[in-house]
Amino acid sequence: MSKRAYNFCAGPAALPEAVLRQAQADLLDWQGRGLSVMEMSHRGEDFTAISSQAEADLRELLGVPGNYKVLFLQGGASLQFAQLAMNLMPEGGKADYIDTGIWSRKAIEQAQHYGTVNVAASAKGYDYFAIPGQHEWQLSKDAAYVHYTPNETIGGLEFDWIPDVGDVPLVADASSDILSRPLDVSRFGLIYAGAQKNIGPSGLVVVIVREDLLGRARAACPTLLDYKVEADNGSMYNTPATFSWYLSGLVFKWLKEQGGLPAMERLNRQKKELLYGFIDASDFYSNPIAQDDRSWMNVPFRLADERLDKAFLQGAEARGLLYLQGHRSVGGMRASIYNAVTLEAVQVLVNYLAEFEKEHG
Amino acid sequence: MSKRAYNFCAGPAALPEAVLRQAQADLLDWQGRGLSVMEMSHRGEDFTAISSQAEADLRELLGVPGNYKVLFLQGGASLQFAQLAMNLMPEGGKADYIDTGIWSRKAIEQAQHYGTVNVAASAKGYDYFAIPGQHEWQLSKDAAYVHYTPNETIGGLEFDWIPDVGDVPLVADASSDILSRPLDVSRFGLIYAGAQKNIGPSGLVVVIVREDLLGRARAACPTLLDYKVEADNGSMYNTPATFSWYLSGLVFKWLKEQGGLPAMERLNRQKKELLYGFIDASDFYSNPIAQDDRSWMNVPFRLADERLDKAFLQGAEARGLLYLQGHRSVGGMRASIYNAVTLEAVQVLVNYLAEFEKEHG
Repeated sequence: MSKRAYNFCAGPAALPEAVLRQAQADLLDWQGRGLSVMEMSHRGEDFTAISSQAEADLRELLGVPGNYKVLFLQGGASLQFAQLAMNLMPEGGKADYIDTGIWSRKAIEQAQHYGTVNVAASAKGYDYFAIPGQHEWQLSKDAAYVHYTPNETIGGLEFDWIPDVGDVPLVADASSDILSRPLDVSRFGLIYAGAQKNIGPSGLVVVIVREDLLGRARAACPTLLDYKVEADNGSMYNTPATFSWYLSGLVFKWLKEQGGLPAMERLNRQKKELLYGFIDASDFYSNPIAQDDRSWMNVPFRLADERLDKAFLQGAEARGLLYLQGHRSVGGMRASIYNAVTLEAVQVLVNYLAEFEKEHG
Repeated sequence: MSKRAYNFCAGPAALPEAVLRQAQADLLDWQGRGLSVMEMSHRGEDFTAISSQAEADLRELLGVPGNYKVLFLQGGASLQFAQLAMNLMPEGGKADYIDTGIWSRKAIEQAQHYGTVNVAASAKGYDYFAIPGQHEWQLSKDAAYVHYTPNETIGGLEFDWIPDVGDVPLVADASSDILSRPLDVSRFGLIYAGAQKNIGPSGLVVVIVREDLLGRARAACPTLLDYKVEADNGSMYNTPATFSWYLSGLVFKWLKEQGGLPAMERLNRQKKELLYGFIDASDFYSNPIAQDDRSWMNVPFRLADERLDKAFLQGAEARGLLYLQGHRSVGGMRASIYNAVTLEAVQVLVNYLAEFEKEHG
């Protein structure tokens, strides 16, 4: 086997090596049963033990209160954009959205199919380099919910605070920062997160929803997309993405072994301080985001001369540093440093940044 | 490693052992890249090579004409029940449905959210033991499409003919018999199939749709569920279920190595003749389905005395014959004998049937 690469992909992203080794060992024969997890009935005892344990471990990691359901669904965050509106926005109703970047705006665009969207605040006035403080927000009096994107995967903006929206349910697309540090779930009405960053393989989306928000789906909502139906059926109204669910369970177990989210917070703080620290000390690399609003997970940066981008990426790849190209919509570079990206990987990246700067700066 | 079990699960179902071995070998390091397929960007060269090859192989296996798109989506057949209606049935429109069992009726129920459903024929008059011939069908003049379920996974009924519905698009839920034998795709407007029987892991649904049917989605259809959007984006409007797609590609490659669908037809014919032949020759076991309408893939059967069911299942499990219990809605037994279930497995099952009958008959 070749050496494992240093994988900075924004998603589908690096998974913990220990998790992949376990999945590899289990692949044809889970616990001596003579079959793969992929080949098990989702309603059988073996798989329901796997799926229940995964849910219990996720609840423990995040401290999910008892009055919340945890759902393991399909379609990614992009389907949630529509699904949450079909479930939570009444016909002819309204919701508040905060625009902090590309993913916020995708959520807004989908919600507009189902009712009135009030963009209560936008980072546009800051060229998407800073998050508008809550004193700038123009919340509606009659919003069904307030939606925001705690971490913008492409722009590299992250809230380091939870908005206070009173009794209105707060809804968060936590796809790219869930499980990166502790989170007070009780502050939210609904949290959703595509799995392919900090949870597991793509094709799975986790939804954490307060029970009083169930049972509000509009008539035209497909039954499979009604949160209450999925909650009542333990996310098995139809066949779930069983292998992705199992693999996510292995990730949750690994996180617990690492010391849970406080340990992840310590590690992720070290990683981001190392990388931003190097970028800030350099005149060759730059990151434009306001200090307090910088993402811990996705670090976009630019070279002083974009004509060097290609050479930079080639040199990186030759050293096993993969997927450093920025999102096609914004260009530049981006290093995604999710939970499974080690401190060593970030150090190797910083070493390469220094080396490349020395050669080309 | 323990011996591989004989897996008769209706889905998620047995996968070819060679496919699982390849996936196991690749798991941490696909083709020396130093990372798992699960960790690759869906937009990178490596994954797009995997996904394109999978599509090309599926097209070759089924002989999909050039004027059809092949989509790799999420949500399973159950989401397709709503999705196809939102895409193909105009507001206030109508569609014809054929009811041959539980899965047909689930499709009907979802379509009723979006327009008028005319149940043009039902197997109810035959206690769901036979499929109504086309001379009995009462098709509408103005149906947007005609929907049927070529194989009823629970009931064990399968069409051995393709309905002739003239110029009206024919839509089929082929979840449990796709790839089991050759199929004339050109007869259909749209074919969909949940992956977890003959294609790959759960969490993936394949849709084969004639291009002239794209672009008809109603306004309230979530963007992600608009077939045209997915067709225009190569099933990557958002992150697809990459690992399931890859694994399905391995299954397609394996099918080609076996000799493609003509070879599968020969093998599956042997398997079903062996199993039905034994059941028919016995007074102890029975299958109620009309001879011509029997499923090649799902063989429900009953013991003469249902008080023996528990002992039968325990004995089966002790011999590594798994998941023979019938669907919870109908009881009895069911052996699903998809492509990856070997002739040897069916022979072992038949040997056990004989042995159990001898002991308890």
